[in-house]
Amino acid sequence: MTKDEAAELISARRLEENLTWQQIAEAIDSPLVWTIAALLGQHPVPEAKAAKVAELLELEPQVSTALRAQPYRGTLDGGAPSDPTIYRLYEALSVYGPAIKEAIHEEFGDGIMSAINFKIDIARRPDPDGDRVVLTFDGKFLDYRW
Amino acid sequence: MTKDEAAELISARRLEENLTWQQIAEAIDSPLVWTIAALLGQHPVPEAKAAKVAELLELEPQVSTALRAQPYRGTLDGGAPSDPTIYRLYEALSVYGPAIKEAIHEEFGDGIMSAINFKIDIARRPDPDGDRVVLTFDGKFLDYRW
Amino acid sequence: MTKDEAAELISARRLEENLTWQQIAEAIDSPLVWTIAALLGQHPVPEAKAAKVAELLELEPQVSTALRAQPYRGTLDGGAPSDPTIYRLYEALSVYGPAIKEAIHEEFGDGIMSAINFKIDIARRPDPDGDRVVLTFDGKFLDYRW
Amino acid sequence: MTKDEAAELISARRLEENLTWQQIAEAIDSPLVWTIAALLGQHPVPEAKAAKVAELLELEPQVSTALRAQPYRGTLDGGAPSDPTIYRLYEALSVYGPAIKEAIHEEFGDGIMSAINFKIDIARRPDPDGDRVVLTFDGKFLDYRW
Amino acid sequence: MTKDEAAELISARRLEENLTWQQIAEAIDSPLVWTIAALLGQHPVPEAKAAKVAELLELEPQVSTALRAQPYRGTLDGGAPSDPTIYRLYEALSVYGPAIKEAIHEEFGDGIMSAINFKIDIARRPDPDGDRVVLTFDGKFLDYRW
Amino acid sequence: MTKDEAAELISARRLEENLTWQQIAEAIDSPLVWTIAALLGQHPVPEAKAAKVAELLELEPQVSTALRAQPYRGTLDGGAPSDPTIYRLYEALSVYGPAIKEAIHEEFGDGIMSAINFKIDIARRPDPDGDRVVLTFDGKFLDYRW
Amino acid sequence: MTKDEAAELISARRLEENLTWQQIAEAIDSPLVWTIAALLGQHPVPEAKAAKVAELLELEPQVSTALRAQPYRGTLDGGAPSDPTIYRLYEALSVYGPAIKEAIHEEFGDGIMSAINFKIDIARRPDPDGDRVVLTFDGKFLDYRW
Amino acid sequence: MTKDEAAELISARRLEENLTWQQIAEAIDSPLVWTIAALLGQHPVPEAKAAKVAELLELEPQVSTALRAQPYRGTLDGGAPSDPTIYRLYEALSVYGPAIKEAIHEEFGDGIMSAINFKIDIARRPDPDGDRVVLTFDGKFLDYRW
Amino acid sequence: MTKDEAAELISARRLEENLTWQQIAEAIDSPLVWTIAALLGQHPVPEAKAAKVAELLELEPQVSTALRAQPYRGTLDGGAPSDPTIYRLYEALSVYGPAIKEAIHEEFGDGIMSAINFKIDIARRPDPDGDRVVLTFDGKFLDYRW
Amino acid sequence: MTKDEAAELISARRLEENLTWQQIAEAIDSPLVWTIAALLGQHPVPEAKAAKVAELLELEPQVSTALRAQPYRGTLDGGAPSDPTIYRLYEALSVYGPAIKEAIHEEFGDGIMSAINFKIDIARRPDPDGDRVVLTFDGKFLDYRW
Repeated sequence: MTKDEAAELISARRLEENLTWQQIAEAIDSPLVWTIAALLGQHPVPEAKAAKVAELLELEPQVSTALRAQPYRGTLDGGAPSDPTIYRLYEALSVYGPAIKEAIHEEFGDGIMSAINFKIDIARRPDPDGDRVVLTFDGKFLDYRW
Repeated sequence: MTKDEAAELISARRLEENLTWQQIAEAIDSPLVWTIAALLGQHPVPEAKAAKVAELLELEPQVSTALRAQPYRGTLDGGAPSDPTIYRLYEALSVYGPAIKEAIHEEFGDGIMSAINFKIDIARRPDPDGDRVVLTFDGKFLDYRW
Repeated sequence: MTKDEAAELISARRLEENLTWQQIAEAIDSPLVWTIAALLGQHPVPEAKAAKVAELLELEPQVSTALRAQPYRGTLDGGAPSDPTIYRLYEALSVYGPAIKEAIHEEFGDGIMSAINFKIDIARRPDPDGDRVVLTFDGKFLDYRW
Repeated sequence: MTKDEAAELISARRLEENLTWQQIAEAIDSPLVWTIAALLGQHPVPEAKAAKVAELLELEPQVSTALRAQPYRGTLDGGAPSDPTIYRLYEALSVYGPAIKEAIHEEFGDGIMSAINFKIDIARRPDPDGDRVVLTFDGKFLDYRW
Repeated sequence: MTKDEAAELISARRLEENLTWQQIAEAIDSPLVWTIAALLGQHPVPEAKAAKVAELLELEPQVSTALRAQPYRGTLDGGAPSDPTIYRLYEALSVYGPAIKEAIHEEFGDGIMSAINFKIDIARRPDPDGDRVVLTFDGKFLDYRW
Repeated sequence: MTKDEAAELISARRLEENLTWQQIAEAIDSPLVWTIAALLGQHPVPEAKAAKVAELLELEPQVSTALRAQPYRGTLDGGAPSDPTIYRLYEALSVYGPAIKEAIHEEFGDGIMSAINFKIDIARRPDPDGDRVVLTFDGKFLDYRW
Repeated sequence: MTKDEAAELISARRLEENLTWQQIAEAIDSPLVWTIAALLGQHPVPEAKAAKVAELLELEPQVSTALRAQPYRGTLDGGAPSDPTIYRLYEALSVYGPAIKEAIHEEFGDGIMSAINFKIDIARRPDPDGDRVVLTFDGKFLDYRW
Repeated sequence: MTKDEAAELISARRLEENLTWQQIAEAIDSPLVWTIAALLGQHPVPEAKAAKVAELLELEPQVSTALRAQPYRGTLDGGAPSDPTIYRLYEALSVYGPAIKEAIHEEFGDGIMSAINFKIDIARRPDPDGDRVVLTFDGKFLDYRW
Repeated sequence: MTKDEAAELISARRLEENLTWQQIAEAIDSPLVWTIAALLGQHPVPEAKAAKVAELLELEPQVSTALRAQPYRGTLDGGAPSDPTIYRLYEALSVYGPAIKEAIHEEFGDGIMSAINFKIDIARRPDPDGDRVVLTFDGKFLDYRW
Repeated sequence: MTKDEAAELISARRLEENLTWQQIAEAIDSPLVWTIAALLGQHPVPEAKAAKVAELLELEPQVSTALRAQPYRGTLDGGAPSDPTIYRLYEALSVYGPAIKEAIHEEFGDGIMSAINFKIDIARRPDPDGDRVVLTFDGKFLDYRW
């Protein structure tokens, strides 16, 4: 079983069981976005957490094995920018884009974060292991409305 | 004069004058990332601010006119994701990527925000004009070190 | 069952039953273009309407479940324009193009809306929730004729 | 002088003279979207109208000659859909997209027509020369707001 | 059954039965190139003709149903020229290319129509419904010869 | 001077002099489509004819030299079909497409040859040097009409 | 059975039976490179030879039928050069590349023909049916060596 | 001066002086295809030969300097095959394609080497420095004939 | 069984058996990176080693046969650089990239070799069979850390 | 002056002055590959070193300014692999590929590092700041030999 197949089984069962990603994240005691990304196949899942997911969703053990495997990451095709500083943002979008989408829909419903009514902040956060870049994207939620 | 030509003139003069983007942003009383994006050609600049920039950098009036013009936005080529929710993030990166790069280099020096030692948070911020999606990208700064 | 598989089943059964998209749209009390787009997989369908579609076409309940799921939207590959104002038109074509095609064939038969014998109008429609852009595409229908 | 060079000269002079596209359209007694598209190089302009534009904007006669020349139309690169019915909509966007963008900015300011708060209608309009397909795109205007 | 699957079944059975496209075209009383294009999935086939094809080739009724369905036309990927006048020629090649290939092989055997020993004529043919453009491509047949 | 630059000069002068391609073709005693293709840079032009063109259009001798040079042919980018039988048709369109476009506009005005109200015939024409494939494209002319 | 499926069956059986391409070519009395290309699906195989191949490799009759079918030739994707003189070389590589690869490995083992220690000769070979271009590629064989 | 600019100057002067590539190759005592490839910018030219070329064509010394520089080789864009054995053939075509084209036109006139009336031979040529792969492409010359 | 299918079976069984690539490499007495690359399908595996792998992992004999087959090498799509000197590095990455990835994860865990905290050395290593280029890439390991 | 223009001036002057990259690297007391990469525009050069380069090559001060500017890095177009572990190797090739090419030519002459007679080693090098991945590419040098 590939990680993609495991992700499909998890997504289908989650809908049938009316479980939120938030509930799954809490069940395995992990951050929300990390959890969605990992279950969609973008991170290897530690053994105990993988087992917990399979148990929670009543899925076969192969799902758990697939979750543990080391992934080939990324979801975007072509068009990657060549500059390393900009590329890292693109890579974050490639690895976490679907997880962000799922989290938006779970919290807000069907719609988008506007890129027009939108702002970005950048800050430095001191950290003994090396200071960190903190980017904040802040956009109005727009729901699909016919 | 095109907006690209204006951006090149501004960048060159900025380096010669040892002016930071932060100083320019303060001079026109605008947010840092917006200012860099606008001066690189991604936003039309209001007339007074455009004039102020030209004055500060001692540039010809055509620069100011070019800054005021309505732009064709975007810096990424090809590979855009088709899902609208994910696309808006990609569009934000296309419009603001170079501005984020400049802001990182100004604050931290030559290097990148790691996408490996990295986390993303998502939150809802209530707003009377419509609630907002707030995404926080938090990654360790890594400097180029041979 | 994926949304694509559900769409294929719906399209096949619709032909066998000689049901028009218009009849299905009326059965679920929804606009024509929205209905076609949604049943082809571009919108999540509310639970009651999804059940009604499955009942009307005598399809298995999994079709109804698939219709309710949140889609990854879009049908066009590559070549997206980077400017946000133009991109929104492209996105509309990506999400609604097949629905418009189906609606044209249902109303006019096999053929096209000419882009040569054709005109576009633009208007502002005041709206208390924010004024609206109204674009009208008006082209002669040309039927395939050997 | 190419049609692109003529379009650049017209755009620059228009801004300097604070002339709207609407005023130019009226001056040559032509529809707004057609006028913008034609002056941006997507249609050959009849001789009298081309002369009028050059006169109005005080541009050299070569601009007028360039406007009259038969164009190589289209502004979108790659990714064209292969189905002829859908392609005609794509072609309309390729030929008229920049004109629609200009018309939106002139009427509403810097921003977009939403593709989320958005609907499409399709209708048949009888015409003795052959019935016509009438598509209406109706989307909320969203202004760029930081 | 998709139109592609129907086309594969028809092609395979045609070879087994040693039927020429010409014979099939005559059996359904249709022009040769139209017939091949339609059976390869580029045109919807009227009900009686679709039934006749299934009968002639002793194929199951689903083939006939698939032939009647409205196609998504086109066989070329990428690289479409943007100018509408040139695009229509490209579209004709996209829709009819495989049919022309089959017709050449049926009449001449394995080989090509040379584009080097080759000429093109253009003519206007008056027609009460609107004059017609008539293009004649005339190239020497070259057979594969080791 | 490149062949492209020569083509641009010829096109510009032709318009200024109100000369048709047909008149130029007659002046050099060559077929219409061949003449346009050759003057647009797709064929090397024999010395006497190249000189005649330069004389007729009162162009500098370098134009004549450029016309004589051996071209790198082709005008279409990407997406070439790999099958040799279909490729030769694509190559013909790549080499002669702009010439056909010019000839259509000269004879019919601004518009297209419809690919919808359209048919194709194929025939074998016996020839002592090897039989020839004759393809006839026959489509209604549609003029741009707002 | 498609020609690709037939090629896979032939390749697998050939390895199991330890038959060289040379032996198969001799069995059907055909040139080596033509034989490999044809059995990999790039040429239609005459009926008697197709039957002989199936018999030699003890394969089912459908393989023989598939070998006889007219192919869609070519193995390279994208990037075809537009100039017809250069394109023919590219087409030869597209049609015969895998056959050349197989022949190199059969004669020399795992490795490549160097394009660095390499030369090309061109010659004219008179022929009553039309003179021939003879190109000779002469490169050192380099075996994979860790 | 870049190698491309040097190549253009050499090509232009060669035509004006009516010098064949063969004559230039003899003047610098080098093989024909190597000479054309090198003068078109695909090989660094030894100092004495570069000087001889400049002298023969009466070109400025910068041409000679540019010829001596180490090139970035290759003329084909995109679509390179990934298998190393096939890639080396593609690379040979990328480096020597234009040289082969020039040599064909010089010897045969305007036309192509057919890839249809065509055969390929492969042979092993023993060599004390390592055996060599010898590929012979043998195709009929076809001249452009309207 | 294709080489890709064999690679998938080997990868899955290796995880189930908790065998490291290093252990497999030792079992077949081969270098680590070569072993991973070969088992992932990038090299033909000698018969005895292929049998040993199948035995060690308790896989069916077809796996062993697939490992012995001559591969179509390469894992990267598109974008290959045309210069031969740079291309060879790209080819090495295409053939050995996944093997390097597996080796990094096996030795260091989930993470990357930094290209920012990174340096490259180049050296000449004399060798009687021809001197060798030795490139050393030296980058800090960064583990995925949320 | 852009960084590309500075790189061109440096390359040209270096050839005229017969200076090796090694000599320049020593003059600015920096590693060879870093120096070439930086002077070709892939790294910002510290002020004193930039001044030293301009002085050594007798170039104008703008070259020095351009060298100090923050670059947009990368030289490869398209086809970037999405997995972050493999991507970092691709990025290294994109940033340092031309520098490696120059260093190979300077040390070995015109030719390539073979990817066939080639091996890769991977090792862990302990480091108090975090252990390092050390990859060694070891390939035979092959000189261009006709």
